Parts: sequence; structure tokens; C-alpha cells
Amino acid sequence: MAALVRSVGSAEYRLPHTGFSFSAGIPAGAVTAEDADLIVHLASQGKVRMHLTLTPQKLPDETGYNVIADLKGSEHPEQIVVVSGHLDSWDLGTGAIDDGAGVVIAMETAEILQRLHLRPARTLRVIAWMDEETGGAGSKAYSTEYINDFPHHIAAIESDAGAAHPLGFDVKAAPAAIEALRPVQSVLLSIGATVFQPTTYPPGADIAAMSDVGVPAFGVMQDGRTYFNYHHSAADTLDKIVPAELRENAAAMAVLAYALANMKEPLPR
Amino acid sequence: MAALVRSVGSAEYRLPHTGFSFSAGIPAGAVTAEDADLIVHLASQGKVRMHLTLTPQKLPDETGYNVIADLKGSEHPEQIVVVSGHLDSWDLGTGAIDDGAGVVIAMETAEILQRLHLRPARTLRVIAWMDEETGGAGSKAYSTEYINDFPHHIAAIESDAGAAHPLGFDVKAAPAAIEALRPVQSVLLSIGATVFQPTTYPPGADIAAMSDVGVPAFGVMQDGRTYFNYHHSAADTLDKIVPAELRENAAAMAVLAYALANMKEPLPR
Repeated sequence: MAALVRSVGSAEYRLPHTGFSFSAGIPAGAVTAEDADLIVHLASQGKVRMHLTLTPQKLPDETGYNVIADLKGSEHPEQIVVVSGHLDSWDLGTGAIDDGAGVVIAMETAEILQRLHLRPARTLRVIAWMDEETGGAGSKAYSTEYINDFPHHIAAIESDAGAAHPLGFDVKAAPAAIEALRPVQSVLLSIGATVFQPTTYPPGADIAAMSDVGVPAFGVMQDGRTYFNYHHSAADTLDKIVPAELRENAAAMAVLAYALANMKEPLPR
Repeated sequence: MAALVRSVGSAEYRLPHTGFSFSAGIPAGAVTAEDADLIVHLASQGKVRMHLTLTPQKLPDETGYNVIADLKGSEHPEQIVVVSGHLDSWDLGTGAIDDGAGVVIAMETAEILQRLHLRPARTLRVIAWMDEETGGAGSKAYSTEYINDFPHHIAAIESDAGAAHPLGFDVKAAPAAIEALRPVQSVLLSIGATVFQPTTYPPGADIAAMSDVGVPAFGVMQDGRTYFNYHHSAADTLDKIVPAELRENAAAMAVLAYALANMKEPLPR
């Protein structure tokens, strides 16, 4: 027994799309959209036989690490604003849009504050999460270690949808929190990243555990029109990143993170 | 010694691009645009060593065939209007845009005349050329066989640029010939295929020999914006063809071919 899926994605370039599968021991593979079309066409004419050579292997776990850096807060160092992306990626491409970009955007957020000599009142914590793709071991380990500290986690931001022009943020937070961020919206107007879109789900896989216990959570909302052209395929490589748009993302995350770190009262929950 | 080229093409999806190479016995390969970028990046930092496993083979020639069908002219059966595409394609994809489409457009031209009960005054000759890609053995064989007949070849049309919306035709012909086709332009207005663009080169590889001895030659000018996204890559497959646009191409070729077959005097040379 084996399972084949049609590769998902918004461009058809004969590329198989990879990802995590819950296949309960059944060997699973993805065929390209074009080859799936062909199989459908043949199946409409009668019984189709395929010879599959799948070589699934479950390798033993290896130890990986979240990478964490704090820019210590000047007034409330114990209060944390997380900015993050994830460090792991699938091996077909090099993981530039998923999610090298997110890691760079989070690191650049701290860099921008440093360069502008803006010392945050609360601690800015840059996290490059490990293992977003195959189950979230990195964010789980963080939760286990810091769960008692989550009441002091003022907010968490993750960027995990590439580096195209930022439109704003998906937000899982109390309506009053979004209301409190109106002035930030007007600062973001100059780069066109003004959307604060309320969501009912955590707006980032690695910040879901925090979001689930009430930490206001933000996901950078990139223009997604090309993201799934490349996502989880061999074409997810650095040339897909437009430097000017990457900088816009860092600017958007920096504006929001600095506001969250410096607003008088933490966001209402 | 070996040669590597950066894959050409207008989309970057980590696909190697194939084609004919004049490499004089030097093994040659194409790397994807993304991998070429990486090599350039590494080379800017110092000496780059690559391990290449190329397995070039020159196989013996096989016999192939042009496929030719005549729709006999009612008044001047000895006068020929050629409509054509080429039958061979590269083996990475299935050759839908290069040039299955052209063969279908040429066949459909004859089909349209039949369906409309339009008997051409001159003979409409549908040709599916063999071996456009690796040197033109098919068109050479045709030239050898029919060169004495070329004065009776009134015109030749080839479609070899996919099946996207037709804008009109590239034309290698005397200015007076293009002038004589003005009424045809107005018929083509309804499908937006009105361009008759004079060229200095033969507007189709397989009709070049005819063009070179003065046969008025036409290449269907498709909207080329996506053609080189897929051309000569694994992604040249049937799903890239938009049926409505394919039909427009057949209509454009049929209108021009019928005009050429039925105009009172052959086009001036």
C-alpha cells in the first residue's frame, strides 16, 4: 500500500512539493501537478497501474537548538517581546522563503533598534526556532522551559510567510489590544503595512503555544501571491527574495516590536 | 574539459533548460539559474571546484518522417500553401508548447476549412516537420525533394512559439505582399491578431529554406510572455495550453492560409 498526493502550490513547473505527512507507516509521495493531471487523464480511460519505487526511512532524532538572543529591556527587563522566524527548512531548496527570511527579519529587528540607538524598555527576544516543519520540537521545548514566564511574555511575533511586501499583521489578541495599536498603524502607513487582521487561530506555528495561553500573537502578513509558487520545493532559493521587500518586512516588525516593548502598559489580554 | 551554461528562461524554478549545443566534443551541461547564481556567489569568494558527472552519448541517427497531408486545391492544385509546426520535441517535458501546439494549429487549419466547406483554390499542405530541434533534417529533406517546386509554393506558415493568444504574424515577404494582405488584417481584427510584422530573418526554422529562395514566409506571433517560462524544460506539458487560445491560433492561421490559397493572384515576391 502506498499513498500519492498531487503536489500543491500555485505554480506548475513539474516540481514535487514536499512536507510533513501523517501516513501511519504507509509510504507516501507527491507527484507533480502535471503528472497528476496525466494520471487523472489515464484513469478516466481505465485501470491505471503504476510502478513506484519509494524508499521511506525514519531516521533517529538528532539534537537541534533554538537560537535565542535578548536585547535587554531598560525598564522592564523581565518583560519579553518575542520576534521570531524558524531556522529549519526542507531540503529540496535552501529554505530562503521558508523560513530563512523570517529569521533574518527577526534578527534585523534587533539590528535596526541597535543602529538607531533605540533601547527597548522591555526585553526584545529574537528567536530562531528549530523544527517548525516536522512537529515543532523547538517551540515545545521553549514552552516547557518558559511556561511559567509566559505571563511576562507581552507579545510574540513570527514571520513565516516569505519576504514579499508586508501588508501588515495577522493578530490573535483581545479587541482592546488591537485598538491600543492604532497609533502603530499610522506609523506603518509609510510602508503600506497597516493591516491588523484579527484571526481565530494562532498566527504562527512556533508562537501557537504562547498564543494559546493568551499571549498577544502577531504573524507578519506578507503579500502571498508568489509564496506558494516556491514553498517546499527545489525552487525555494535566495534569488526569490527581493532585498527591498525584505527590508520592508524588517521595518514593519521593528516598528511593531518597538511599540510593544515601549508602550506604557502591556497590551490588554 | 567540460562546459556548463546557466539555464536560460524567463522563470526560475530550479529547472535545467535543454537544447542543442555545438560543443565540438566537449561535454556540456546546463545548470539551473539558481545553481548558477550560487556558483557565481562562490566564485566571487575564491576558486571553485566542481565535481561533474556528465554522461554524454551520441546515438546513431534514426529514421524519422515529416508528416504531410494535402487538401487539394480546386483551381490551382499545383500551387501550394504550406501550414506547419514541428513534430519533434525535447524529452524533459512532453513538448506541448514546443511544438505540439504548432502541429495542432496546422492540422486544425485544414479541419476548419473542411468543417466550413471551404474548398481552397490552391492546395493547402499541412506539414508536421521532423527534427526541428537538432538540425532540421526534416525540412532539409523536404527542400531536397521539392526545391524545383518552390516557385509553386505560394507561401509557407509555421507556428513554433506556443499556443498563447496570437497577436498576428512575423512576415518575411516583399512589402507589396504585406500590402496585398491588408484585407486579411481586417478579418483578423475580431480575434486581435492583426500584426503583420516584417522581419529580416525567416520567421520559422522549418520554412527557412523556402523563405531563403523567396517564398513568402509567415510565423504565427504568439503572446510570448510565458513561452520561455516552460520552453525546453520538464514543465513543457499539456496543462500549459489554454484551449481557447489554441483555437484563436488555429483561427488566425486558417484565415491567413485560406486568403493565401484563394486570392486572385499569388502574393508578389
